Amino acid sequence: MILRMEESSSPNPRKAALTESLLRIVVERGLDQVSVREVASAAGVSIGTVQHYFPTKDEMLAAAFAEVVRRVRARLESVELGDDVRRNLSTVLQEFLPLDARRSEEARIMVAFSARAATSPELAEVQRGVLGEIHEALSEAFARAANGRADEAETKRTAHIAIAAADGLALHAVSAPRWISRPELAATLELLLNRLLPREKDASTS
Amino acid sequence: MILRMEESSSPNPRKAALTESLLRIVVERGLDQVSVREVASAAGVSIGTVQHYFPTKDEMLAAAFAEVVRRVRARLESVELGDDVRRNLSTVLQEFLPLDARRSEEARIMVAFSARAATSPELAEVQRGVLGEIHEALSEAFARAANGRADEAETKRTAHIAIAAADGLALHAVSAPRWISRPELAATLELLLNRLLPREKDASTS
Repeated sequence: MILRMEESSSPNPRKAALTESLLRIVVERGLDQVSVREVASAAGVSIGTVQHYFPTKDEMLAAAFAEVVRRVRARLESVELGDDVRRNLSTVLQEFLPLDARRSEEARIMVAFSARAATSPELAEVQRGVLGEIHEALSEAFARAANGRADEAETKRTAHIAIAAADGLALHAVSAPRWISRPELAATLELLLNRLLPREKDASTS
Repeated sequence: MILRMEESSSPNPRKAALTESLLRIVVERGLDQVSVREVASAAGVSIGTVQHYFPTKDEMLAAAFAEVVRRVRARLESVELGDDVRRNLSTVLQEFLPLDARRSEEARIMVAFSARAATSPELAEVQRGVLGEIHEALSEAFARAANGRADEAETKRTAHIAIAAADGLALHAVSAPRWISRPELAATLELLLNRLLPREKDASTS
């Protein structure tokens, strides 16, 4: 699962601190509570300082979303992958589910930005980019698992289902309290892979 | 697919008009643009009038979310269902995908409220309720389709996958422009059902 590192990430430390404050607000109070004023207050700087780095709120949000995407990408690149396609798919998709505190925070952030992208062209571009990268990587994995027994259209649709189901499970887990437990999330992901990958008896290539 | 009608829907016409104005703002500008002031302005009434019906913004949002859920429920109840479980599942899940202008608007609204539920206990309760109803109905349908060949845990997880994939596809379609076309959304849903339902050769009960 190789997600391309499309841009270098050596952000200005001041800018990085502002982004961190912004993401903290999103996790704790929600994206609708983010404003230049709130970020300045949370970071302990003046409104003018925030505006120096981010002239508009939309630019500030897009930079924060891009930063989260960079983190997800970096983590996916560091995942230990082997020859077992199914295990690789499981490992990668688990990164999108709120299975521990870190991933819960990240899922809350991703859900908030994804939803906001519906009415923000800047965020929509970021969203389209990250979906494209993940979709390409998953399509490759499903094509390898199908081993010639699925055409390209089917492989791409299978990848759409996998990303959509993972994001949908994350959305439901963060938006409805006590709706689905972490073990149940993990078990549901495994059942999804059982259904999307060729069955053992079909998969023999010998 | 029977979703329970849990509350009667004979809202005050004034209140209904305010909710309509609020939903219009969500579709056109996003949930973060909703405020008592904006709703009053869009509906052509005073701020005091809005506050008379909805003392707090959270109550106003929860009422609007509940109204959308009522509409979805009413539409699902009016769907013509037959004995073909697969066709029923397809018909119902299609209602959650932005396959035409009406469903696109509704998907935008559902995505926005679902995401906001992550930081709003009032909205989270509504979200949990609607997920519970849909999950119960889908679990029944998948249990019927499995015809005794799947245990309850598997049936419930299958229903989780179906709702999550449908909501995830809707989220991606409304948040990333030109990411996935309507025909491709519909084809992806059919592939999902192919994968989740017993295969023809396994499903014979004769």
